[in-house]
Amino acid sequence: MKSEKSIFKKFRQKAHIIIYGTNTVYGRLFDLFLLVVILLSVVLVMLETVQGFDTKYHDQVVFLEWSITIFFTIEYFLRVISINKPFKYIFSFYGIIDLIAVLPMYLSLFLTGTSVLTIIRAFRLIRLFKILNHPQFTGQSLHLKEAMLASRGKIVVFIYFVLISTVFIGSIMYVIEGPESGFTSIPTSIYWTIVTLTTVGYGDISPVTPLGQFVASFVMVLGYGIIAVPTGIVTAEMAKTNRKHPEINKKNPCANCGTEDHYTDAEFCYNCGNILRND
Amino acid sequence: MKSEKSIFKKFRQKAHIIIYGTNTVYGRLFDLFLLVVILLSVVLVMLETVQGFDTKYHDQVVFLEWSITIFFTIEYFLRVISINKPFKYIFSFYGIIDLIAVLPMYLSLFLTGTSVLTIIRAFRLIRLFKILNHPQFTGQSLHLKEAMLASRGKIVVFIYFVLISTVFIGSIMYVIEGPESGFTSIPTSIYWTIVTLTTVGYGDISPVTPLGQFVASFVMVLGYGIIAVPTGIVTAEMAKTNRKHPEINKKNPCANCGTEDHYTDAEFCYNCGNILRND
Amino acid sequence: MKSEKSIFKKFRQKAHIIIYGTNTVYGRLFDLFLLVVILLSVVLVMLETVQGFDTKYHDQVVFLEWSITIFFTIEYFLRVISINKPFKYIFSFYGIIDLIAVLPMYLSLFLTGTSVLTIIRAFRLIRLFKILNHPQFTGQSLHLKEAMLASRGKIVVFIYFVLISTVFIGSIMYVIEGPESGFTSIPTSIYWTIVTLTTVGYGDISPVTPLGQFVASFVMVLGYGIIAVPTGIVTAEMAKTNRKHPEINKKNPCANCGTEDHYTDAEFCYNCGNILRND
Amino acid sequence: MKSEKSIFKKFRQKAHIIIYGTNTVYGRLFDLFLLVVILLSVVLVMLETVQGFDTKYHDQVVFLEWSITIFFTIEYFLRVISINKPFKYIFSFYGIIDLIAVLPMYLSLFLTGTSVLTIIRAFRLIRLFKILNHPQFTGQSLHLKEAMLASRGKIVVFIYFVLISTVFIGSIMYVIEGPESGFTSIPTSIYWTIVTLTTVGYGDISPVTPLGQFVASFVMVLGYGIIAVPTGIVTAEMAKTNRKHPEINKKNPCANCGTEDHYTDAEFCYNCGNILRND
Repeated sequence: MKSEKSIFKKFRQKAHIIIYGTNTVYGRLFDLFLLVVILLSVVLVMLETVQGFDTKYHDQVVFLEWSITIFFTIEYFLRVISINKPFKYIFSFYGIIDLIAVLPMYLSLFLTGTSVLTIIRAFRLIRLFKILNHPQFTGQSLHLKEAMLASRGKIVVFIYFVLISTVFIGSIMYVIEGPESGFTSIPTSIYWTIVTLTTVGYGDISPVTPLGQFVASFVMVLGYGIIAVPTGIVTAEMAKTNRKHPEINKKNPCANCGTEDHYTDAEFCYNCGNILRND
Repeated sequence: MKSEKSIFKKFRQKAHIIIYGTNTVYGRLFDLFLLVVILLSVVLVMLETVQGFDTKYHDQVVFLEWSITIFFTIEYFLRVISINKPFKYIFSFYGIIDLIAVLPMYLSLFLTGTSVLTIIRAFRLIRLFKILNHPQFTGQSLHLKEAMLASRGKIVVFIYFVLISTVFIGSIMYVIEGPESGFTSIPTSIYWTIVTLTTVGYGDISPVTPLGQFVASFVMVLGYGIIAVPTGIVTAEMAKTNRKHPEINKKNPCANCGTEDHYTDAEFCYNCGNILRND
Repeated sequence: MKSEKSIFKKFRQKAHIIIYGTNTVYGRLFDLFLLVVILLSVVLVMLETVQGFDTKYHDQVVFLEWSITIFFTIEYFLRVISINKPFKYIFSFYGIIDLIAVLPMYLSLFLTGTSVLTIIRAFRLIRLFKILNHPQFTGQSLHLKEAMLASRGKIVVFIYFVLISTVFIGSIMYVIEGPESGFTSIPTSIYWTIVTLTTVGYGDISPVTPLGQFVASFVMVLGYGIIAVPTGIVTAEMAKTNRKHPEINKKNPCANCGTEDHYTDAEFCYNCGNILRND
Repeated sequence: MKSEKSIFKKFRQKAHIIIYGTNTVYGRLFDLFLLVVILLSVVLVMLETVQGFDTKYHDQVVFLEWSITIFFTIEYFLRVISINKPFKYIFSFYGIIDLIAVLPMYLSLFLTGTSVLTIIRAFRLIRLFKILNHPQFTGQSLHLKEAMLASRGKIVVFIYFVLISTVFIGSIMYVIEGPESGFTSIPTSIYWTIVTLTTVGYGDISPVTPLGQFVASFVMVLGYGIIAVPTGIVTAEMAKTNRKHPEINKKNPCANCGTEDHYTDAEFCYNCGNILRND
């Protein structure tokens, strides 16, 4: 009885190290294997929708799909068992994603017409974002995140302004062009405005009256111009973030005159010629 | 007589606090309610243009539309009554918008064929811009405004240059491609030039002759390149604005004179020379 | 004889002041009038190509066109007469433009089928660029020019790289897609590549094979990414140009410690608390 | 015997100077000639695919093509002979390109149906990149390269994020729109997502259901917004690179140790502490 418990305890410990550990060899190998299986799983979901592929390789696809599902099911149970607070994992964001990605396959056994649901397996992709927490990415993504968060406020104001303009321009274009040019309703007109303002320009709807083309030209120039705003916001924040972590040594002020912005390899203060302490 | 006047005075005062006040609880609630009603009103205008929707929910739409119109009419009169200088409000930008947004509904009672006019109700959207004056937005929008205003001069020069180029390229493409390729006139050709230069690219008109495609390629590369100009202008201004108000400075006001925007490495207040506490 | 010469001399002098002068009242009025006539002339050229307009207002258009042509002819002769070195003007860039813009109208009298040539009158537009030399624009356009010229070298390298890539990708797509998808020849394929790389995307030619769509996706992401390069170049130059003419006072170093980047309204050095000399 | 060897040696030496040398007159002339022949060769490859051209000028094209091929064959052998370590060249990147670009023409003699292979001659274009190593380009391209390399990490994270989003949005749009709107499979849906996200917008596939258009609008705004990220990354890096090598510093090398990159306001060399002459 005791030994059984300790065997289970050891097994749990090992599973924890392999599944949750990122610093051990086995942990890293497991992460890599998981990455490959997720990618394979997503590629399968994609290929199944390609006409002709499913009929040709039906048996192989089903076999692979079930192998992957069973693998993820085992992984899910191991994750639940090997963690100290299982419910915290089960109700965590990634816990729910893990469950949701596995369920549709089992549901398809009992229910017909759930083929649409199996696309939910593509949710596994979200787990790939976790990789951004790995050491080699952390620095860069933190840098990006910091700049994004800092510019959040300005971007909200910008999007608010753009949205209102979109509804406004959409209403005007609906009146100018009317249903016979493809502007069948204000929502469709707003859709056209967004297509134009973002410079996507499908051409499924396009103005045909001279006045409509004139207003459209104005919208295009506006869209072309205001792209400068989010770019400006993010760039300015990034330049600031860069300045906060610069290669030029801000930490080494001259002991004599206090000047701060010396090159890292500077040995003398460029302002007063005093020898710099290089720690 | 006297009490009646004082009742009216009190009512006016209360109305003023609720309608114009943004710092009281009722004032804020009223603003929030107004926001919801404006959005609902705009959504109604939009949905009415969707085919099938109007015929299905005609009665409900008419009821809601009249409720909203009556609400805005009452609000308009309260705004006029409760302010000290009513004519200043009536002839102000927002005063005219408020009136214009309400009138079409009443006009539709007496005149037929004014359904187009009812779209004017979408003008209420403009009032949503007012929200940008609310405290939580002010900082960010001021920041954006400042950068925009500072880059105004350069942007005018840029747009002037682009407009002339547009007319010029449009004329050349009209000669090269001619009416049979869809370049039916110079104005249409200019429209095409703007569609191409802003990288929208509907494809409703596109060059078919080799020379036309060659010139078009040149226009595209030009458009792709000159997008750098407005972006560069706005970004440079934003970086400058950021440098003028860096976040870090806000945390260290001078204990003597209260000046706030010091450099992080400042040891003395630049305004009064007082020593700064650096925590 | 003498008086005649002096009358001509006086007339020449007056003409010179009005036509070439930009600081006198008459000179400015003439410039403004010229601006209006040029715009009118260009609008006429544009409208003549609009179907239906020419047949409707043929007489008025011909009258206006001839009035403008005669006005520009007189202006041309006055420019030649009133300048000290007439040949320098005649063979200058703007001198040639002025002549070229006037000639087609006279040619159309003697030759038929020169209607295409009359579009050359749109060349008058180029004279509008001269306005950028006016004082109120000079500062801003110089600023822009400076940033452009400074980034010239990098932009040439960038365009060189893009052009080679374009030919390369065009050749690959021609092999992948072939004539039946619209990629009829390598030049057409290169045209498609430019349309895609610059994110214009007409859709007149678009890949239909899976491999072609895959390569196209790669081209799009490339185009989306490399737009960062010209933007980055110009922005960085603009930020530098801004830094060279900053509002923050670089000219006022602290007499005590030499720190330089004080606010313009600073009265004390933030570094050592010394009083600043404010000139 | 001896003299023959020395003649070959001299010939080898001369060939080496002409082919590999970039500082001698003959070396430069040869480079220029090579540039022209490569461009001619690429233009020929392009024109051969234009319908009608090949049938019209078939003999001239064949003659030119063979002349160029023989020239490049001779050049290839000279390169192999005149270098000290021929195998190092043969198996180098440019050595393989040189061979690959010459072979298809000879293959077309023995094998039919290799016309597709002759497009491989366009690979010669890659040799044009070598020109970027020439002195007049080096500074600028190094500058660009440095900024690119420095932003590599952030760009990888960004592309990783965009790719996952693309697969995710593609799957969702496939479910929403379905095959009858042109979203025939998830890979096609992903292709559409990339076309939309990069603001290319061909319009060959475009959403038709209201929900699909709504999600598409969201994708467009996302694409319009996230273009700010690569631009921000590259711009911030370029501004940093500019700051590290500002033009002004180059003019003031230290008289004592020759260090060049001083701040304009530096009075002492940061490397040796020597007083700088500030002219």
